[in-house]
Parts: sequence; structure tokens; C-alpha cells
Amino acid sequence: MAEERATLEDRAQLERLVPVLVAPIQHHVFVCTGKSCSAVGSAEVKSEFEKELLERGMLFGKEKKGKNPKGSVVLTECASVGFCAIGAAVLVYPDGVWYAQVMPSDVAEIVETHLVEGRVVERLALMRIAKSPD
Amino acid sequence: MAEERATLEDRAQLERLVPVLVAPIQHHVFVCTGKSCSAVGSAEVKSEFEKELLERGMLFGKEKKGKNPKGSVVLTECASVGFCAIGAAVLVYPDGVWYAQVMPSDVAEIVETHLVEGRVVERLALMRIAKSPD
Repeated sequence: MAEERATLEDRAQLERLVPVLVAPIQHHVFVCTGKSCSAVGSAEVKSEFEKELLERGMLFGKEKKGKNPKGSVVLTECASVGFCAIGAAVLVYPDGVWYAQVMPSDVAEIVETHLVEGRVVERLALMRIAKSPD
Repeated sequence: MAEERATLEDRAQLERLVPVLVAPIQHHVFVCTGKSCSAVGSAEVKSEFEKELLERGMLFGKEKKGKNPKGSVVLTECASVGFCAIGAAVLVYPDGVWYAQVMPSDVAEIVETHLVEGRVVERLALMRIAKSPD
């Protein structure tokens, strides 16, 4: 067991193996690709986030994939979160904002208003999970 | 377009359709089921979270699935987050804590210490994304 976790002990090696550790991540965006969200176009929503974030140099990822190892946004697909009736669901953490019925045409506004300017897009935000106290 | 979003206008109907809106959610736990994390047993890690959270009545979900519609934890699979070299990755939001090399035997401690008591399990926590200012 101890041996399997050895990489965690060597910080320099770890940061080479896991570049996200040294990226200035500010937001983690999840796009639901569960059955219901997929049926209303969540793959297109995710592609639109990828396009918008790539254009702005904000998308964290490998340089050889055109992404930015110092990007501030991680974009990840996720399974169903319970917004099946009102997809596509997009969650922005750590802010804890759940957006509903997101269409590709909404993505630029979420990127600009929320991820760049730090203000929630109220017309699409249906739920908010407050951060627990430390 | 306006019509497609009509359900968002009727709050009572919306809460029937989307029970997570009225659940007292405190934590959203993501377990990575990307290729690398799956290869080191992330499916078992997710099952263990499901078991632990079910036993405590904390797992949000439908009653007919044995879950709790008033549960405080949403548990969701996600795609790769960049912890491929150090999986299984488990993320706890909105706290913004990314756990690495999580094994099924670690899950009870994460549930008890972090989700119940509110303290980060430091020996497994590799990254933390701070919440942006409101």
C-alpha cells in the first residue's frame, strides 16, 4: 500500500506527472452527458465551452492538444446529476452554481459573465450549493 | 426557444420534476471513471461511497432506489480531471478538494472526516481550488 502511493511523497516528480497541480485553476465546469442531457444536445454544449475557452486561452490542458497548461478552467463531462428534466445541466464549481436548460447559444454568456467577470448568469442558474465552513 | 424553457417558470412543477432542487445538498462528490482511474479501481471506490452514504442516509436520490430524496450528498461519476497518474481521483465540491490515489479502504474516512465532520483528509488531499469571491 505504502509503495503504491510513493509518488505523492516527491513533489517535483508529482508536478511533472500531474500538471493540473501547478495550474492556476479558478473554475471547474462540468457538463452532464447523461442520457437526458445528451438527448437535448449536451455534447454540443460541451463543444461550445471547449471552443470559447480555447479561444480565450482559459482551457486547462496539454499544449499539444491546443490547450493551456496554465489555463484557469477545467472542463469535464459528468454523469447524471438529477437535472434530467431540465438539461443540459452545467455546473460551475467551486461556486456551486447549477445551470439548467443550457444551450450552445448560452455558453459565451456563461464564459464571459461567470467565468471571466465572476457574476452568476441568473436567468439560467437554478440551484446553488453554498460552501461549507472550513 | 422561450417555450422550451417554460418549465423554469413554474416553480412548483419544477420541484416535482427536479427533486434535487429541494434537497439540502451540502456536498457534491465526483469519482473519476476515466481510463486511468478505472484501471486502478475507481468503480470500486464509487461503489464504496454509495454503500457508506446509503448506510448513513446521506446519499441523495430516489426513494425507490433506496436513496434519500432529502440526502445531503450528490455522488456523480466524471471523466478525466488530469489526475490520471495518481488515481483514483475523488473531488469534493463546493469545498474544492481533490483527493488522489483513493482506494475503497479510504472511503469511510473521507465520508466520516470530510462529509460528516467537515475536515479535509489531508493525507489524501493533493489540490484545493478556492472559491471565487461572490
